[in-house]
Amino acid sequence: MHTNLKRTLTKECINKVGEMVKVQGWVKKIRHLGNISFIVLRERTGELQCVLEGKLAGVIIETESVIEVIGKIVPTNNTVLGVELLIKSVKVINKNDLLPFEVNKKEVNIGLENLLNHRVLSLRHEKIASIFKIKATLEEAFREYLINMDFIRIFTPKIVSQGAEGGANVFNLNYFGKDAFLAQSPQFYKQMMVASGLEYVFEIGPVFRAEEHNSSRHLNEYISLDLEMAFIEDYEELMELETQVIKFMFEKVKEKNENELKLLNIEMPTITEIPKLKLHEAREILKNRFKKEIPEGDEYEMLVASFREKGLNEENFQNYLNTFKYGVPPHGGFAIGLERLTAKLLGLTNVREASAFPRDINRLTP
Amino acid sequence: MHTNLKRTLTKECINKVGEMVKVQGWVKKIRHLGNISFIVLRERTGELQCVLEGKLAGVIIETESVIEVIGKIVPTNNTVLGVELLIKSVKVINKNDLLPFEVNKKEVNIGLENLLNHRVLSLRHEKIASIFKIKATLEEAFREYLINMDFIRIFTPKIVSQGAEGGANVFNLNYFGKDAFLAQSPQFYKQMMVASGLEYVFEIGPVFRAEEHNSSRHLNEYISLDLEMAFIEDYEELMELETQVIKFMFEKVKEKNENELKLLNIEMPTITEIPKLKLHEAREILKNRFKKEIPEGDEYEMLVASFREKGLNEENFQNYLNTFKYGVPPHGGFAIGLERLTAKLLGLTNVREASAFPRDINRLTP
Repeated sequence: MHTNLKRTLTKECINKVGEMVKVQGWVKKIRHLGNISFIVLRERTGELQCVLEGKLAGVIIETESVIEVIGKIVPTNNTVLGVELLIKSVKVINKNDLLPFEVNKKEVNIGLENLLNHRVLSLRHEKIASIFKIKATLEEAFREYLINMDFIRIFTPKIVSQGAEGGANVFNLNYFGKDAFLAQSPQFYKQMMVASGLEYVFEIGPVFRAEEHNSSRHLNEYISLDLEMAFIEDYEELMELETQVIKFMFEKVKEKNENELKLLNIEMPTITEIPKLKLHEAREILKNRFKKEIPEGDEYEMLVASFREKGLNEENFQNYLNTFKYGVPPHGGFAIGLERLTAKLLGLTNVREASAFPRDINRLTP
Repeated sequence: MHTNLKRTLTKECINKVGEMVKVQGWVKKIRHLGNISFIVLRERTGELQCVLEGKLAGVIIETESVIEVIGKIVPTNNTVLGVELLIKSVKVINKNDLLPFEVNKKEVNIGLENLLNHRVLSLRHEKIASIFKIKATLEEAFREYLINMDFIRIFTPKIVSQGAEGGANVFNLNYFGKDAFLAQSPQFYKQMMVASGLEYVFEIGPVFRAEEHNSSRHLNEYISLDLEMAFIEDYEELMELETQVIKFMFEKVKEKNENELKLLNIEMPTITEIPKLKLHEAREILKNRFKKEIPEGDEYEMLVASFREKGLNEENFQNYLNTFKYGVPPHGGFAIGLERLTAKLLGLTNVREASAFPRDINRLTP
């Protein structure tokens, strides 16, 4: 009888008082109070309280099942939304089996392994979903800022003939009988695209590091927000750009993710200036605290020295080195790890929480 | 003396008549006419004619070198821009070596192998750069349309424990001693993210196909524009969405890439409706023209049959299959290959022309 109704979203219900609507979503909670039952229906725009009376009361539906409900929107003082739905009919679209854990508690207390093993379920918790909504905004804002600054998006290969940062930390694969590697960074390709005359380029894509670290800060596959720009005057320009980009990203999160920030109890930091270290200061810290000395030399000697130190064969980089024969402008760039930034911003204790399906030394699923 | 000048872009010169400016870019052409020389300087916003008189005339600079020029902008009738620059000083920032081919001819006649082997140079031709500017707009428009339709961007792993479409066409790699594969599609992960409650999701990222085809339509790594949405009523909804997305993408190209379309002599098609085939019609064509029969059955039987046909072990898909236990809404999606769409739209004879650094059965560099 109401089969022609289009789906109404929870956020639209507030404007549909008195109307018959169809809503679809997941059963977050179901409560029975004598001859009346309440379902809290959750979908991507919010939660809606639905009321079952008379014959419909007492219906048994597993939480987290997918249902379709038809009924009338009425005003109420009992919900945050200010309305609720009086159910006329309810249909289970997809019944949920027994859950491995309860996902509808106020706090997520299921442990990282459970959380990652059951992403489809753990993501249903609004606090966890919030992480990925904010992550999406950060990426979106990075892109928007650069497009407005006249950068062009590039797409560079992830299957490469040589790693960008050395032989040890690179995944290798057989490419139709040839040795190939997964890109550790789009570094060389960014530079080639700058030199091709596009000048201001950015890329957002996965990078792969075969690092055996199993720390709370490491992922073996992550999203790198990368840029490179031609005709820079000095590195201060890049530092200034990075400051402005991050400022813009944070502003965008404040604007677009007010609800998510509230849920996660995050107060966004105000960026005035990002702390800076002089190169010699960084050297001192590495030397004194970590007993690691970095060789000195110009921005080319160091490159060649680094090639040799890492056991890389210069011949394999001929395409990259050729670039420098054909008129390359002064250029520079940087990259931000999207998951690390998200994790830092939201105070997550483990970077894996900012990756829907993280890859680490032990984890290859889901 | 003018060391504090900031770089002026070619497109800004029109508003700087009478001013002393600094411009930076590549030497597209250099011509000597007695005691006067002309340099056409090219950078990302256009081309600027620069005039050398007196002592400066006759200067020898290789084309495609990177130069910095300081001088005065004056009006002229001899250039499209309506202005030219009278050079006060010129500095070669990075000298170009001998070029393997001439990149500044009106038409690109260098052959596909040369074009791909020397991307940094071939991309300097404005017709070739135009392909990548249009490609960037197509991606940008896909994203914009979906964001406006309340889709959320997701990031799913490219290193996976099992291919999405079968064992034969998948690249495998050693993942810390485990067998792993490169994702052929984000299909399973898109569905998991839909089921997690995000409902409307999209992803833009590389996919990898170890296909041995060496045709003008195949790439072994390409950018897939992917989406998946929950609570669809039927597949017509997806067909309508795809039509609208592509319409929007084409409109955006018309709006943003007028110059590039003119250069490539492309008239954008007007989309009213995309031709549709009924499933049984497609089956007939496959049967009659290609002698290939597709088994009939429902949207789950076919999945399991397909798993078996492809020699896939159902156990490896447990995480994916688990998804269907925990309340999955009806959903559907589609994907567009960015390079194929770009190539089709621009009438390129080979899809490789729409990939900056294509990967095919023989090509792993640059």
